[in-house]
Amino acid sequence: MTAPLVVSMGDPAGIGPEIIAKAWAERHRTNLPAFVMVGDARAIERVWQGPVRRVADLSAVASVFAEALPVLQLDSGSAVTLGSPDVDGARCAFDALEQAAGLVRSGAARALVTGPVSKAQLYSVGFLHPGQTEFIAERCGISPENAVMMLAGPGLRVVPITVHVPLAAVSGMLSIDLLLAKARVTARGLQRNFGIANPRLAFAGFNPHAGEGGAIGREEIEIIEPAIAQLRGEGIDAAGPFAADTMFGARARAGYDAALCCYHDQALVPLKTLFFDDGVNITLGLPIVRTSPDHGTAFDIAGQDRAEPGAMIAAIRMAADAAERRAESASCS
Amino acid sequence: MTAPLVVSMGDPAGIGPEIIAKAWAERHRTNLPAFVMVGDARAIERVWQGPVRRVADLSAVASVFAEALPVLQLDSGSAVTLGSPDVDGARCAFDALEQAAGLVRSGAARALVTGPVSKAQLYSVGFLHPGQTEFIAERCGISPENAVMMLAGPGLRVVPITVHVPLAAVSGMLSIDLLLAKARVTARGLQRNFGIANPRLAFAGFNPHAGEGGAIGREEIEIIEPAIAQLRGEGIDAAGPFAADTMFGARARAGYDAALCCYHDQALVPLKTLFFDDGVNITLGLPIVRTSPDHGTAFDIAGQDRAEPGAMIAAIRMAADAAERRAESASCS
Repeated sequence: MTAPLVVSMGDPAGIGPEIIAKAWAERHRTNLPAFVMVGDARAIERVWQGPVRRVADLSAVASVFAEALPVLQLDSGSAVTLGSPDVDGARCAFDALEQAAGLVRSGAARALVTGPVSKAQLYSVGFLHPGQTEFIAERCGISPENAVMMLAGPGLRVVPITVHVPLAAVSGMLSIDLLLAKARVTARGLQRNFGIANPRLAFAGFNPHAGEGGAIGREEIEIIEPAIAQLRGEGIDAAGPFAADTMFGARARAGYDAALCCYHDQALVPLKTLFFDDGVNITLGLPIVRTSPDHGTAFDIAGQDRAEPGAMIAAIRMAADAAERRAESASCS
Repeated sequence: MTAPLVVSMGDPAGIGPEIIAKAWAERHRTNLPAFVMVGDARAIERVWQGPVRRVADLSAVASVFAEALPVLQLDSGSAVTLGSPDVDGARCAFDALEQAAGLVRSGAARALVTGPVSKAQLYSVGFLHPGQTEFIAERCGISPENAVMMLAGPGLRVVPITVHVPLAAVSGMLSIDLLLAKARVTARGLQRNFGIANPRLAFAGFNPHAGEGGAIGREEIEIIEPAIAQLRGEGIDAAGPFAADTMFGARARAGYDAALCCYHDQALVPLKTLFFDDGVNITLGLPIVRTSPDHGTAFDIAGQDRAEPGAMIAAIRMAADAAERRAESASCS
C-alpha cells in the first residue's frame, strides 16, 4: 500500500489550513492522492465547515481520506486569532514541520508539502534557520547550499542562483563554482523529480541584453560563459547566457526545461507574472521530495474564505508525481 | 484634412520594410489611419508583392493609401542584401529617420513611427547618438535625459528608470532626482498621450521583496520612498515601492497605469514575457508623438516572410491615438 503524502499546516493564523482543506475538497476534480495534514485540526475547523478526522498514525490515512480530511493532531494554543500570528501558533507550525519532515525521512510518508509560515514568528520561538528549506535540508543531512529552490508553474521552471540578498551584492556573489553547483543539482533534480532524461538548462544573462558582448557588463563573459562551457564538458545541456527579457516568452520557454537566473526577481518576476496563483516551490537536492505553494501566509485575508487553493493543489500534485517517479526509478535500478 | 503618420523604414536589410508592408495590408482589419513610409520603395518591393506607390510629398498620401502603400522615396544603395546590413543601407535608414522626424516637427505629418535600425551600422555612418530616441530628442530640442522610454503592451506600461547600463552600476545611478524626473515626465506623458487625467504610478522596489524594510537592501528607504513622498506632495498619484515579483500579475496590473522600474530587465522581462509580439516603445517628454515596435531588425529572418507585423501595427495604432488625443486637448484649450 502506497504511503500517504504529508502536508504541514503552516501558521494557523494564516491561510495554510484553509487552502489545505480546500485542496482536500477538490481532491476528485484535481485527482489528488491521499494526504494527511500534520497540525492542529482546530485550525481547520475554525475556517472550514467540511469533515475533519483526527488520526493517530498514518495507517488510517488512506481509508479516512475518502470521507474526511485526515489530521495528525498537534495541539496549538487555543487562542489563535486569524490574521494575528502569535507564539503558540508559531510553535505549533514549527512542530508540524518537524514531525512532517520526520515522517517523510523515515519513509512512513512519501513526500512533504509545507504550508506557509511566518519566518518572523518562527524566529521568535527559537527557529534558527533562514527558512523552511534550510531547516529541512539540515534535517536531511544536506548542506543548505546544496538544496536548490526551484519555482515551477505550468510551462516554466526557474531557479534563482542567489535569493534573499541585496541586488547590489549579487554581482560579487556570483561565481563559476556557485553556478556549477546550482546547475548540477538542477539537472539532477529535473531527472529525478520530473523524469527528464536530458534536462535543458538555460542561463539568463545578468546585464541588459546579456551584456552585449561585454559592452554592458562582464559577468556573462567572466562567470556565466565559463560555467556553461564546463557544464557542457560534463555532458549537461546548458545554454546561454540569454538576454533575460527575451527568454520568457512562450516560444522561448519551449526551448528549455529550467531557467537559471542570477537573482531573485529575475526568476520570480516572470514566474509570478505568468502563474501568480499556481506557482510551486520545489526543493531540489534533497533525499526526500519537498514542495510548497509559492506564496506566503496572507494574514490579511486569513479566515475570509478568499484564499485560492490552486498553488497548494499544484504543490501536492507535483510532490505526488515526483515521489512516483523516484519510486519507479528506484524499483528499476 | 488630417495629416498622415510617417513611418521611417529602418534598416533595409532587416524586417522593417516587411512589417511596414504587412501593416498596410492589414489596414482594414486593424483600422489603421493613413501613413506613409519614408525610405526606399525598393526595400519593400524586394520582400513583398503588394502595391507600392512613390509619392512626391505628403499631400498625396491620403488618396494613395486606399490603393497602395505610399512611399516618400529616398534612394538607398541598390546592392542591399537581406540579412546583411551595410553602409549604404544604414545611410538610407539614417536619412529616412531624419526626414521623417522633420516632417513631424514641421507639422506636415502628425506622428512618427520608427522602423528598427542597427545601431552598430548607424555608428559606422557617423550617427553620434546612443539610439534613435536620443537623436529624435535632440532634433526636437529636448535634452535626452528628459525623453523617457515607455514600453507598452495590452494592459501593461513600464518605464525603465535606467536602461543600457551594467546591473552592478544601477544602485549607484539611482537618485531621488532621477526618479522624480522620470516620474514627472511619465505622469505628464500618460495625460497627453493616453488621456489619463490622474495617472497612477507604481514604483517597483530595487531589491527582493522591495528590501523587506531594509533587511535586504536600503535603496527603497533611501531613494524610492522619499521620491514617492515628494511626488505625492506634488499631487502625482505615486505608490510603492512594491515587490517586483508580485506587481505584474493580472490583478496587480489593474492597480496602476505605469510601473516605474529601477533597471532594464525589471521593466522588460514582464513586458516581453506577456506581450512578446506586440510591445510598443513610446517616447514621452517630446513635443511630437513618437512610437516604435519594441523589437530589433531581426536580420536572421529578414526576407523570409516570417516577420510578425503585430508590434508595428500596435505602434502605428498607438501613435495615431496619441496624436488624436493631443489634437483634441490642443483644440479644447
